Amino acid sequence: MTITQAPTTSGTSSTGPDLGRATHLSCRECGAVVPLGPHYACLECFGPLEVTYDFGTITRERIESGPRSIWRYRDLLPVPEHVATIPNTDPGLTPLVRADNLARELGLKSLWVKNDAANPTHSFKDRVVAVALAAARELGFKVLACPSTGNLANAVAAAAARAGIRSYVFIPSDLEQQKITTSAVYGTTLVAVQGNYDDVNRLASELAGEHDDWAFVNVNVRPYYAEGSKTLAYETSEQLGWRVPPQVVIPIASGSQLTKVDKAFHELLRLGLVDGDGPAIFGAQAAGCSPVAAAYKDGHEVVRPVRPDTIAKSLAIGNPADGPYVLDVVRRTGGAVEDVTDDEVVEGIRLLARTEGIFAETAGGVTVAVLAKLLREGLLDPGAETVVFNTGEGLKTLDAVAPVVGPTGTIAPSTEAFHDLVQN
Amino acid sequence: MTITQAPTTSGTSSTGPDLGRATHLSCRECGAVVPLGPHYACLECFGPLEVTYDFGTITRERIESGPRSIWRYRDLLPVPEHVATIPNTDPGLTPLVRADNLARELGLKSLWVKNDAANPTHSFKDRVVAVALAAARELGFKVLACPSTGNLANAVAAAAARAGIRSYVFIPSDLEQQKITTSAVYGTTLVAVQGNYDDVNRLASELAGEHDDWAFVNVNVRPYYAEGSKTLAYETSEQLGWRVPPQVVIPIASGSQLTKVDKAFHELLRLGLVDGDGPAIFGAQAAGCSPVAAAYKDGHEVVRPVRPDTIAKSLAIGNPADGPYVLDVVRRTGGAVEDVTDDEVVEGIRLLARTEGIFAETAGGVTVAVLAKLLREGLLDPGAETVVFNTGEGLKTLDAVAPVVGPTGTIAPSTEAFHDLVQN
Ligand SMILES: Cc1ncc(COP(=O)(O)O)c(C=O)c1O
Ligand SMILES: Cc1ncc(COP(=O)(O)O)c(C=O)c1O
Ligand SMILES: [Zn+2]
Ligand SMILES: [Zn+2]
Repeated sequence: MTITQAPTTSGTSSTGPDLGRATHLSCRECGAVVPLGPHYACLECFGPLEVTYDFGTITRERIESGPRSIWRYRDLLPVPEHVATIPNTDPGLTPLVRADNLARELGLKSLWVKNDAANPTHSFKDRVVAVALAAARELGFKVLACPSTGNLANAVAAAAARAGIRSYVFIPSDLEQQKITTSAVYGTTLVAVQGNYDDVNRLASELAGEHDDWAFVNVNVRPYYAEGSKTLAYETSEQLGWRVPPQVVIPIASGSQLTKVDKAFHELLRLGLVDGDGPAIFGAQAAGCSPVAAAYKDGHEVVRPVRPDTIAKSLAIGNPADGPYVLDVVRRTGGAVEDVTDDEVVEGIRLLARTEGIFAETAGGVTVAVLAKLLREGLLDPGAETVVFNTGEGLKTLDAVAPVVGPTGTIAPSTEAFHDLVQN
Repeated sequence: MTITQAPTTSGTSSTGPDLGRATHLSCRECGAVVPLGPHYACLECFGPLEVTYDFGTITRERIESGPRSIWRYRDLLPVPEHVATIPNTDPGLTPLVRADNLARELGLKSLWVKNDAANPTHSFKDRVVAVALAAARELGFKVLACPSTGNLANAVAAAAARAGIRSYVFIPSDLEQQKITTSAVYGTTLVAVQGNYDDVNRLASELAGEHDDWAFVNVNVRPYYAEGSKTLAYETSEQLGWRVPPQVVIPIASGSQLTKVDKAFHELLRLGLVDGDGPAIFGAQAAGCSPVAAAYKDGHEVVRPVRPDTIAKSLAIGNPADGPYVLDVVRRTGGAVEDVTDDEVVEGIRLLARTEGIFAETAGGVTVAVLAKLLREGLLDPGAETVVFNTGEGLKTLDAVAPVVGPTGTIAPSTEAFHDLVQN
């Protein structure tokens, strides 16, 4: 594994980068400490690095008087105090939707949908990219880049356009036309790579080693990027009136989001911003790519890589970097990891759309279907308040539902023809 | 023209419907006054009816302490005071994005994009449908319906799902697969009609006459529906710190949105919520369907219908109901109406995406391209602050840009291949 060195072009070397209340990076495996910088793997053990903070005092009032975006939580992120004044996509504060119709159908007492389809490019990736961009500027990077299969590509290309900086987005060449179009339109340098996502990812790591002023958001600035997912937990708590929901259901690809959401709830508890306990955290995967669910069910502590084969492409990471940490979180909090078939994913999308008017991408279908399955299995308490994350937008994965939804019928333009169709 | 009578099933007949501070309907042609009810055309002259209010006092503080949705402006809409407690999609408070990059490219001093792609179904139609749904409930209607070519269909189907009521959505049978899927997924009764939009619209009017408890949002409850567009102006003013921008550029299909935005700015002025003058209002059409632009340029007061032929399908209304009112507004306020070719529409979409990271549908491309054209022609003041509306989402009209944007190149998964491609 290559350890990226500080960019030679950094203009922040004299005073160090301004990353707010972040103080250093620490290794999740061995606890070794590294100064804040463009590092992502431990020099001692190659374990992943994580951002550590000295928060001091943070009040609800200070947060509530902040911007209507993730930047209201800037004190809890590795970004400068004035972050909201720098061009970025300013995602976050997406709706927490009360889902009484869906709760009724599933036999749940109280259910909410955190709807991240409302973000600028319509997935939760806008959160992680916005934080990565803000930190990358401070670390002296000049260019934004990523390997991606879709949502991340959209988010990086859009954020770089708005920030007025160059970007390079690397995708597998056999990606669906619609994901190619939605990234290329932002004027990024979009590079189609002959190979699968793993090949693209490997190329990105090599290029990160060569170009020391390029921030590959999910590679060499990954510790900062990952912190962006914490805002899902902060927002959920604030939107519930500064409470922690007893149960949360979260989709898993690399597992980064799930582990950071757990971290964030515990930060809120430690800071005294909320009372009580952390939530039980449940993970959701598609059966066609469920290495974490398999390890959970088998009682393993490591995750055996799989070759993905599912319509839930945004979750199709066969070798999830944060898999072992997900297992830790889920077991510690009294949650579980479950998986559902592609047919159940489609039913999950339709169920959420039909009951709440929210059209989710396949990742959301996975999460709703897993919620239903956990209830059937008695693994989730129907009497306890539950939050389910919809992390993406149905318009991006139309092919998943197109074969099974369509017009009720086709008629001539007359009232008689209509009555024949609907019998009323 | 059929005048719909009050639904026999109305449960509100004893006390009358609770429509907040709305007092009656009045005819825009002859001024005749009608009680609040399910009426949309004047009994005297068949002119369109409009909602009239007795606002009393409305303060900035009251608005600012309201919900983070269009319902913060409930005192200015024909909806009950407790509207936010009734299941609806709760659209609005979409971002007003500072567009410095685009301003620089166009030579404008100060520019903002009001981005309605952030609404629940990603167009401004969520606003009008939410108000229509709230009013329709009060008027005793039991079912939501519409004729549509896309955005309205999505918004009606989603809102009805969330409200837990039945819906009927009527579309031309040759509509693009993606617009069919995105409506059908919400579980509406989706009826494909063999014919064009005019045929669909006629059938909808006939069915509205037959079914007195069906609210066709843009037909028999149109006066209430149209009021929803006012929230674009309210939000823009509040987001600017309670100011009126000197110039606003708005797309035109039926022209309803443009005329209601003008009405709303004048309500704010009359209520003392903002100071100064109303904005100069500019209208935007596609050259393939520009009956209002043509009438404006020819100095006419009536609009000659055309047969639409443009990629901007959401704006393709050849016989715009509010055309003459648009001409009034634009002339009175010192604005103009301009049109742009389909190629310019595509360039408008790309320009906005490349400079600000906002991916608009064709209607947004029309508006941005018209902004550029008005500047070239000297019809818009480059030194005056300007707001441009993006009313819809690029994911819904991918076909418009797919032929012209794509990967920079396709390479083997090696750094050498990458260097050959980008020459760096
Ligand atoms: C829509 C969506 N949801 C969830 C995830 C899962 O994220 P993570 O890799 O943090 O587990 C992804 C990742 O790509 C995604 O695109
Ligand atoms: C995205 C979008 N923008 C603008 C409009 C114009 O609306 P109006 O008919 O009020 O002029 C429409 C109407 O369908 C639309 O779908
Ligand atoms: Zn270590
Ligand atoms: Zn009249």
